Amino acid sequence: MTEKKTAAILGGGVIGGGWAARFLLNGWDVRVFDPDPEAPRKIGEVLANARRALPGLGNVALPAEGQLSFHTEMAQAVAGAHWVQESVPERLDIKHRVYSGLVGHVGADVVIGSSTSGFKPSELQQGQALAGQIVVTHPFNPVYLLPVVELVGTPANSDATIAQAREVLQGLGMFPLHLRKEIDAHVADRLLEAVWREALWLVKDGIATTEEIDNAIRYGFGLRWAQMGLFETYRIAGGEAGMKHFMAQFGPCLTWPWTKLMDVPEFTDELVELIAGQSDAQSGHLSIRQLEQIRDSNLVGMMRLLAANNWGAGALQNAHDSAREADAGLCSHIDQLADLAKPVLTLNRVVPLDWLDYNGHMTESRYLETFTKATDRLMAMVGCDEDYIAKGGSYFTAETHIRHLDEAKAGTPITVHTQVLAGEGKKMHLWHELRAGERLLATGEQMLVHVDLASRSASAPAGHVAQALGRLAGAHAALPQPQGLGRAIGDPR
Amino acid sequence: MTEKKTAAILGGGVIGGGWAARFLLNGWDVRVFDPDPEAPRKIGEVLANARRALPGLGNVALPAEGQLSFHTEMAQAVAGAHWVQESVPERLDIKHRVYSGLVGHVGADVVIGSSTSGFKPSELQQGQALAGQIVVTHPFNPVYLLPVVELVGTPANSDATIAQAREVLQGLGMFPLHLRKEIDAHVADRLLEAVWREALWLVKDGIATTEEIDNAIRYGFGLRWAQMGLFETYRIAGGEAGMKHFMAQFGPCLTWPWTKLMDVPEFTDELVELIAGQSDAQSGHLSIRQLEQIRDSNLVGMMRLLAANNWGAGALQNAHDSAREADAGLCSHIDQLADLAKPVLTLNRVVPLDWLDYNGHMTESRYLETFTKATDRLMAMVGCDEDYIAKGGSYFTAETHIRHLDEAKAGTPITVHTQVLAGEGKKMHLWHELRAGERLLATGEQMLVHVDLASRSASAPAGHVAQALGRLAGAHAALPQPQGLGRAIGDPR
Repeated sequence: MTEKKTAAILGGGVIGGGWAARFLLNGWDVRVFDPDPEAPRKIGEVLANARRALPGLGNVALPAEGQLSFHTEMAQAVAGAHWVQESVPERLDIKHRVYSGLVGHVGADVVIGSSTSGFKPSELQQGQALAGQIVVTHPFNPVYLLPVVELVGTPANSDATIAQAREVLQGLGMFPLHLRKEIDAHVADRLLEAVWREALWLVKDGIATTEEIDNAIRYGFGLRWAQMGLFETYRIAGGEAGMKHFMAQFGPCLTWPWTKLMDVPEFTDELVELIAGQSDAQSGHLSIRQLEQIRDSNLVGMMRLLAANNWGAGALQNAHDSAREADAGLCSHIDQLADLAKPVLTLNRVVPLDWLDYNGHMTESRYLETFTKATDRLMAMVGCDEDYIAKGGSYFTAETHIRHLDEAKAGTPITVHTQVLAGEGKKMHLWHELRAGERLLATGEQMLVHVDLASRSASAPAGHVAQALGRLAGAHAALPQPQGLGRAIGDPR
Repeated sequence: MTEKKTAAILGGGVIGGGWAARFLLNGWDVRVFDPDPEAPRKIGEVLANARRALPGLGNVALPAEGQLSFHTEMAQAVAGAHWVQESVPERLDIKHRVYSGLVGHVGADVVIGSSTSGFKPSELQQGQALAGQIVVTHPFNPVYLLPVVELVGTPANSDATIAQAREVLQGLGMFPLHLRKEIDAHVADRLLEAVWREALWLVKDGIATTEEIDNAIRYGFGLRWAQMGLFETYRIAGGEAGMKHFMAQFGPCLTWPWTKLMDVPEFTDELVELIAGQSDAQSGHLSIRQLEQIRDSNLVGMMRLLAANNWGAGALQNAHDSAREADAGLCSHIDQLADLAKPVLTLNRVVPLDWLDYNGHMTESRYLETFTKATDRLMAMVGCDEDYIAKGGSYFTAETHIRHLDEAKAGTPITVHTQVLAGEGKKMHLWHELRAGERLLATGEQMLVHVDLASRSASAPAGHVAQALGRLAGAHAALPQPQGLGRAIGDPR
């Protein structure tokens, strides 16, 4: 377990609130400075969204939430902080005033990250005594879910400062995209600005409505970009001949009238009314709060799917989970267990948003999924791990009996403890107990058989697996027989 | 069941192949015209990808595949066809030659859709005898998975032609985005072109590599766009104050140097080498075939997640599934059953890509998911449907026993048949059999209890539900007792 740290959040809007939530839910204490008396309410709303979505995103429970406090004095908020995140309005004079106010109050080794969408770090640092500590750390809304954060420094920042920024951001489950060269609006917002301008033209010229443009994106290339981005998608389009072939095919379009971006649409009241009216027609039946929750449910589900495929944003999440396993009390081998004679902690996570059904609770097949994951961990702990499986040995489930005893909602922390009832020869007989705190949600009894993956038939496990499983089964033999063992459906309770 | 139809595919590249696959897998016969002797191989490769990904995308089995044939005479390919899709190279003279060659060979009521990325329909129609039948139907790669297709006509097209085009495309599970006004490159490609140009500048100027740009997208706004698009995302960013607030905040950026799009990067060999080299460094460790399969696995999983949330591309898929239920033999009420005394077909689908585990087969929790979905349908068939549940009544599973008897791979057509063992008072005792063809994959025995969703406690079902369930249970009482009923784990086989 790492030392408890403190983040100071300067500016408590949607972005500042998102940062506050990400730090808090990753175990940091958070001190918010915002003179707006509405700041606690606003941050509370972002935090409620974040608590709904983030804890279940990964497959490993997060640390206990940190402490949140609000401050009207900036000096008080930043005193002793290990990170300062500035998300004040996008005006250079305001940002400079904030940085000047930090002098004498923040430690010399504390990174001051700015959430600026547009300013270059050299502009932020201009004339600042703390220039060497100021970097751009530009996140994307919702900050508590989307991993990317653009990290941009200047030669005024030491390598150590950049390295420290990277480390903190990665510790929050984020992906610091470090730009070697500064530029107005960094990278992602330049791409967004290009699309925004073209889209404004399309609406203004009556070619498409806001809804039609959104549909063109979300039913098409948006799905491609969520997992691969622009260039990797086009690499595929080029086929076996690759990127050069694609460029040869579409390069000439650069001189064709495929965009109006040689000109900028005039920002008039009429254009604002047009866009706002179309947006109301498209999405006005849903409140912003509803849209946020729909967005977050979709993001969590899509990122969890990508995690199952170990790809893109999901691969980042998996790496973050792995780094957290030990802190969550999860072991990778039985030799790491404090007491071999106790049921093994085989799962420690939070019910994610994509596990609910129409009854508003965790759906029954996800109960079995927790037992499956528990079995996977137990298998790995006796040596039937990824390498072993790649070499052709594994266990298949032959039979499962589940008793559903209680419900679980999204956001509920859950654990599985597993008892080995028998582990001899080809068979492995397991007993899982799924709990929310002390509350028993379900029991799962499973009979598994070791198989040869080449012949798909039962086979004896390798010696080291048989030996480790035997040791654990032997130690568990002293445990009392679980209640409900060997039940058939219809047996009296 | 609708009449068997035939599509003629003119041009057998990646796009033509994608169209061929989408028509074929939706039950159409497909005739491909392409003078390239490699066309069958190329289309075969796209089709292999499509067969891997598409059939399991929805929750209802697709019709039997149509017949595929290759033709070296265009007239032969299009004779009697109900749809002609032109995907020949992006040159107006070639396209015009193809359309002229169709005269006298296609029926007067057949839509001729062009996959053109850039040409306006008026350009395609220019000087063509068949002008009234020619429309733009511009799809996105992979055509067999992404639903959007830009449908653009001119006043030369009748309303009936446009309506017919819409109907055929929707029948293929696609979303026709009908543009009222034609424009070079339609809508989506204009947005893509804007991003492409800006991205080329970023690479050329050494700000970011292709991989960094892809990461900026796929770890950030790509995830937002896959489900909401541009304007709905920004509506949320505007908060309760909405779109006008967002525009007031970011409108001024239109005059800031946030893009280089007032200029076009020169398309030089150096630029091609730079991009291609970076793309190799980023993705060169994976073959195009591997990238395609990764992309498709991600797309299927993400679209299925969106379907579970009934949102975006997933909501389209759900509508397509619903329209196909009767054809797949699935009923919504027991009164529709041909024989009440037989086990009920409660699931008819294909194992999707996101149901696999590291053992390369359908994972055990998805076995339970098939039983859950089967139970859901049976509940709906006795009147415990969406409306009933919204009013506060439902069934919760108390206990489940699964016997895993055989494996299933992705792409395997599977069914569940359900027998009601008992349905009296608060209890419902079910027996599910999961099969791949005749092969029994698993049995699932479940005991459910009717609950009051307000108090979360057991309660009697409404009269009409009790009555319908009783009728079905009574009719099933004559069925033989299933083998394996009432098993406990460890019982001798």
